[in-house]
Amino acid sequence: MSLIVQKFGGTSVADAQRLENVARRVIEAYDDGNDVVVVVSAQGDTTDDLIEKAREVNSKPSKREMDVLLSAGEQISMSLLAMTIEKLGRPVISLTGWQAGMATDGTYGAARMKRVLTERMEAEIDKKRIVIVAGFQGINAVGDITTLGRGGSDTSAVAIAAALGAELCQIFTDVTGVFTADPRIVKDAVKLDDISYDEMLELASLGANVLHNRSVEMAKKYNVNMEVLSSMEKVPGTIVKEENSVEKMLVRGVTRDNNVARISLVNVKDEPGKAFQVFSLLAKKKINVDVILQSVGRDDMKDISFTVTEDNLQSALDTLNENNAAIGASEIRHTENISKVSIVGAGMQSNPGVASLMFEALYDAGINIQMISTSEIKISVLIEEKDAEKAVVAIHDKFHLSNV
Amino acid sequence: MSLIVQKFGGTSVADAQRLENVARRVIEAYDDGNDVVVVVSAQGDTTDDLIEKAREVNSKPSKREMDVLLSAGEQISMSLLAMTIEKLGRPVISLTGWQAGMATDGTYGAARMKRVLTERMEAEIDKKRIVIVAGFQGINAVGDITTLGRGGSDTSAVAIAAALGAELCQIFTDVTGVFTADPRIVKDAVKLDDISYDEMLELASLGANVLHNRSVEMAKKYNVNMEVLSSMEKVPGTIVKEENSVEKMLVRGVTRDNNVARISLVNVKDEPGKAFQVFSLLAKKKINVDVILQSVGRDDMKDISFTVTEDNLQSALDTLNENNAAIGASEIRHTENISKVSIVGAGMQSNPGVASLMFEALYDAGINIQMISTSEIKISVLIEEKDAEKAVVAIHDKFHLSNV
Repeated sequence: MSLIVQKFGGTSVADAQRLENVARRVIEAYDDGNDVVVVVSAQGDTTDDLIEKAREVNSKPSKREMDVLLSAGEQISMSLLAMTIEKLGRPVISLTGWQAGMATDGTYGAARMKRVLTERMEAEIDKKRIVIVAGFQGINAVGDITTLGRGGSDTSAVAIAAALGAELCQIFTDVTGVFTADPRIVKDAVKLDDISYDEMLELASLGANVLHNRSVEMAKKYNVNMEVLSSMEKVPGTIVKEENSVEKMLVRGVTRDNNVARISLVNVKDEPGKAFQVFSLLAKKKINVDVILQSVGRDDMKDISFTVTEDNLQSALDTLNENNAAIGASEIRHTENISKVSIVGAGMQSNPGVASLMFEALYDAGINIQMISTSEIKISVLIEEKDAEKAVVAIHDKFHLSNV
Repeated sequence: MSLIVQKFGGTSVADAQRLENVARRVIEAYDDGNDVVVVVSAQGDTTDDLIEKAREVNSKPSKREMDVLLSAGEQISMSLLAMTIEKLGRPVISLTGWQAGMATDGTYGAARMKRVLTERMEAEIDKKRIVIVAGFQGINAVGDITTLGRGGSDTSAVAIAAALGAELCQIFTDVTGVFTADPRIVKDAVKLDDISYDEMLELASLGANVLHNRSVEMAKKYNVNMEVLSSMEKVPGTIVKEENSVEKMLVRGVTRDNNVARISLVNVKDEPGKAFQVFSLLAKKKINVDVILQSVGRDDMKDISFTVTEDNLQSALDTLNENNAAIGASEIRHTENISKVSIVGAGMQSNPGVASLMFEALYDAGINIQMISTSEIKISVLIEEKDAEKAVVAIHDKFHLSNV
């Protein structure tokens, strides 16, 4: 008998009918003789509704009170799922983040898991109860409610799986697994049976929108086997685990990310410490910078270009403009008409020529590359947003990914 | 400087505009130099909406999970009120039942307060913060969320006032205080400046719908001064306290309660233990019996009539019918076309003739009395429901209650 952690997102628990679907999936695992811990997000639009309620009373509420407010969302969905399972005649109990021992640091709105105090969950599992836990939320050292920020419920599920030593952490989504490319763009995209943590991390950060990075990082750290699978269709998903299959595929998938904006600082002085000055300013504002390109200095001047996510663009521009007296750029340009297209695969580490094959695919398709960024297991290019889908199809085709 | 506890019901915090009204009332007390603890119910229809959500998934959910679900309601309203007060620039923090130390017994759905662990509230008060506490909810010994049942938020407020030694516990409602009769029925009904705990208890249980009995009982036990006042109009309310004013009024108020049904057991054997048999059956089903009338035995047979609330009628009839083999009534009759009209006043203890004055008023109005019940400070009569309003007016007039 093994322990399985299952996580269901807000869409999966949005109404009574969907709750019953979820309950049946949970009961199936339970009736197979497994101990089951279920992590749920807030129902469908609950979080948006609560944010709107907050906005009506205060345009800048404290993060502490927002966490109190938003955590009510999972409290509602978890009790409704428990009631649904009660109706279907299985023993069940729901636990909030604090009841389940989800101890976090003190950062409201984006807390990090510190540890899971498993006593209560283990006691309920010993009683043969299905345990429903509120995702996304925890409790800090002073006894206040915290939330884990974006992708928080995935992180909750992995943290619980790690703490309880679960065999498997199943993340139920609206897709049947991880594909070689977005099936909406590439018709013959193929579902992968398994993928390594590192490949998944690159895919997640590159806009594959399946799993949040934090959860994959945690799964890698504690060696938790994850499965990404559909909450609607009963078909095997994609397993995310330590080792890739013996025969390493060159390239595992192609992704596109449109949530990219480029900022260019034109004509800054070509002197030591300039990049540090710029990027430390942005780091202080918690703005992550992705691809960076620095032109070769000429006449003591150079250009620095880099990308940020579109939601960080305004804040980044504000920061740079406020500090341009010190930075000394003659102009600060930006564009949002840009996409990042990437290929990911642990196999490419030992295979030279992968990059040139990718560039060839783009050249054949007549697509101009603006910036390039590489790591051991991925290659990203920045191109015009209008060319992005064409690029994904061309690359997917070039690497024969539909024949894996 | 003194400590004031203020309680606002669901209607008072129903939307952003009302939340701001409440916030301003709270801030007024705070800016006057008081420490302020605010107890809130769930917003407007939230509780009904949550009950409906539960009903959609399970017609008989466990009480434990219902408590988890419903307690989310106050968590939402308390954080929204805190955000509103933040916007108005005063230091504030919201606390759930478990954070505020509201320790209850283990009865889900109708828990009783055991104690208030005041450490966290006192620490926040010491920081000069306005403290918002979720009413209606607590935590039991195993760390589960409980709710206090009907009138629970009033009880929360009084329990906190008692534990913190507050000067005053203000219960904000949609009326400006306690009146000599329902102003919708009796045009010249008068607001009372003060009333004793005992009188308030009788009025509350008699359908005055102002305060829930449990809160008044607790206020009496711990000698907490309560004030019933309007959340909309800024006028003094009615103080509920230990001692009545020196000059005791004969009668303090007239009430009417339509939530009454009468059951008659016709022709039961006139033998010892018969009443005990009947009422212990109902007690086991948690059905409270109010006015009881037993006919004088004749031919070894008697009739037993009594009242229950209308919502308990069906359950009472079911219980009696199931057990009628043992009870042996020839017939079990019932009616809901009945009202209880009562007068209340500590002064009547030492004033004979009050009852006859009341009966005279009813006789003058041509109203027939079906049953009578008396205590030291109240007299109730059961009459036909259609006569109830006329009866209240006639009695109010007879006792000159508009000239207090």
